Amino acid sequence: MHRFSELAAQFEAHLSQSGICSGQPDTLYEPCRYLLSLGGKRIRPTLCLMGAELFDALSEEAFHAALAIELFHNFTLVHDDIMDKAPLRRGRPTIHARNGLTAGILCGDLLCIEAYSQLSKLSNALPQVLRMFNQTAAEVCEGQQLDMDFEPRQDVRVEEYIRMIELKTSVLLAASLKMGALIGGATGQAADKLYTFGRTLGIAFQLQDDYLDAFGDSDKLGKQTGGDILADKKTFLHLKAMEHLDEKDRQTLMRWQGREGAEKLPHTLELFRKSGADERCREAVAAYSQRAFDALEEVAVLSKRKHALKELAEMLLLREA
Amino acid sequence: MHRFSELAAQFEAHLSQSGICSGQPDTLYEPCRYLLSLGGKRIRPTLCLMGAELFDALSEEAFHAALAIELFHNFTLVHDDIMDKAPLRRGRPTIHARNGLTAGILCGDLLCIEAYSQLSKLSNALPQVLRMFNQTAAEVCEGQQLDMDFEPRQDVRVEEYIRMIELKTSVLLAASLKMGALIGGATGQAADKLYTFGRTLGIAFQLQDDYLDAFGDSDKLGKQTGGDILADKKTFLHLKAMEHLDEKDRQTLMRWQGREGAEKLPHTLELFRKSGADERCREAVAAYSQRAFDALEEVAVLSKRKHALKELAEMLLLREA
Repeated sequence: MHRFSELAAQFEAHLSQSGICSGQPDTLYEPCRYLLSLGGKRIRPTLCLMGAELFDALSEEAFHAALAIELFHNFTLVHDDIMDKAPLRRGRPTIHARNGLTAGILCGDLLCIEAYSQLSKLSNALPQVLRMFNQTAAEVCEGQQLDMDFEPRQDVRVEEYIRMIELKTSVLLAASLKMGALIGGATGQAADKLYTFGRTLGIAFQLQDDYLDAFGDSDKLGKQTGGDILADKKTFLHLKAMEHLDEKDRQTLMRWQGREGAEKLPHTLELFRKSGADERCREAVAAYSQRAFDALEEVAVLSKRKHALKELAEMLLLREA
Repeated sequence: MHRFSELAAQFEAHLSQSGICSGQPDTLYEPCRYLLSLGGKRIRPTLCLMGAELFDALSEEAFHAALAIELFHNFTLVHDDIMDKAPLRRGRPTIHARNGLTAGILCGDLLCIEAYSQLSKLSNALPQVLRMFNQTAAEVCEGQQLDMDFEPRQDVRVEEYIRMIELKTSVLLAASLKMGALIGGATGQAADKLYTFGRTLGIAFQLQDDYLDAFGDSDKLGKQTGGDILADKKTFLHLKAMEHLDEKDRQTLMRWQGREGAEKLPHTLELFRKSGADERCREAVAAYSQRAFDALEEVAVLSKRKHALKELAEMLLLREA
């Protein structure tokens, strides 16, 4: 993960020197700075830098785009946290919990606008990158809306779920790579292959997240497992189990859903296993990963240039153990 | 108002043929279409068209920018309505009241992104217009935050209030004109003068709104007066009265503020008059209007081309009677 860490650190330095969100009034800008200071792995902006670096030496423009992506991502986090009524983000109070609903909404709005301010610094690549960004941004909203729509529904199909995570999560990863590639001067075809790599990798990653939350090793993950089950989330595992269990077991699974307390954890996991959902989830992760690596293979640049991206993809996909 | 009505009608036709917000899922896009269909006077997009027309025949590009501005304005309306807990907008349920908080937040977010999608269709003027738009968008958020910050404060100064309405309302009117002008091919200086015209006209208009809400003729206005007083808003009149009343009268005014019921209306109006706030408000309207017309005078195009803008400004400022 050498190159990833280097680029993430370069991005971090860029962010802290950027003077972003230093306007007035403080009641608006301070919560934005607070959120940005909470950190995170900076995967998306680093993907943007990696996408650019595949084709050319890193330019100031690549950092503008990377900043835009990270600002946009943080905008979605603030508003999602309001919709999810989440009290904490990265172990610290969320904006709406800390500064109220008004600050939460406005802080998100401002981060979105600041993202576009960064994009406006681009020169030649501006029109193409702006269109890519707009399309992705709309898709992320669509994904979040679908996620909200699915909550009360009992008839969500697995394909709908995958489309939702694709929109909510994967397209931004894919767009990060593609925007970087466009700035680096990639051909349309190479940029599109890279987009496919990011999109399928993102789906694989999210499905693996579903798997690990249920069956992972909490020591190795660094967090408690079972969170999705306790929160009654309709993950890939749940939807696949509902699809393959017989009527009696399906009823049992639905009865456990909605109950309070940790007792439901072992029962739910057993039904996931009995239905074969665990195995199907691993298969789906493998299939999407394969599609990702195939697409990366087809990006027309020297193979050794792809090393950093391969390394990152493997790191993201092999954290289970 | 002939030209204004013509351009507003052209804009309306453009909006309804644009296919804007026709994506999926419907839970996200239908509320956006509903909001846009509620109408309104379309002042901002029409100002954009007028700004363009000062310098050149109307192009497709001017309509892209006009759509962007109207979409952005509607984005701010949805989110402001959440913050203000407003149940109605143009006599119809607000998005959050009709579709819930999640839909309200996401519908606003999407409208903001759709605004940028329209901008991305610009060609030569894109970089300049995008930067102008971003700066204005951030300022509108700052204005809304200041408005929220002022609510619990008892020590808001008149200058702070004017800065707030400038940010919250006037800069978007000004930017609408300037964006149109840039697309029409205006020089930097002409575009800036036009911006000053819009900014000062906007302040004059807002201050007049404060005046009319207290002292206007409800028949001629087509709405009940006294709304600001009943809602305990700290308008120009209130702040000026607080500044000029003696201690005893100031205490009386503050006591009336916060009470329920229509009884406070005549008492408050009397204190506004006694303090001279009514006269000071009319003077301020006249002063900002004069600055607006002076700036328009200095825009270097043939005088007859400015006719439509003068007519519009007079209509906006002379609706009192």
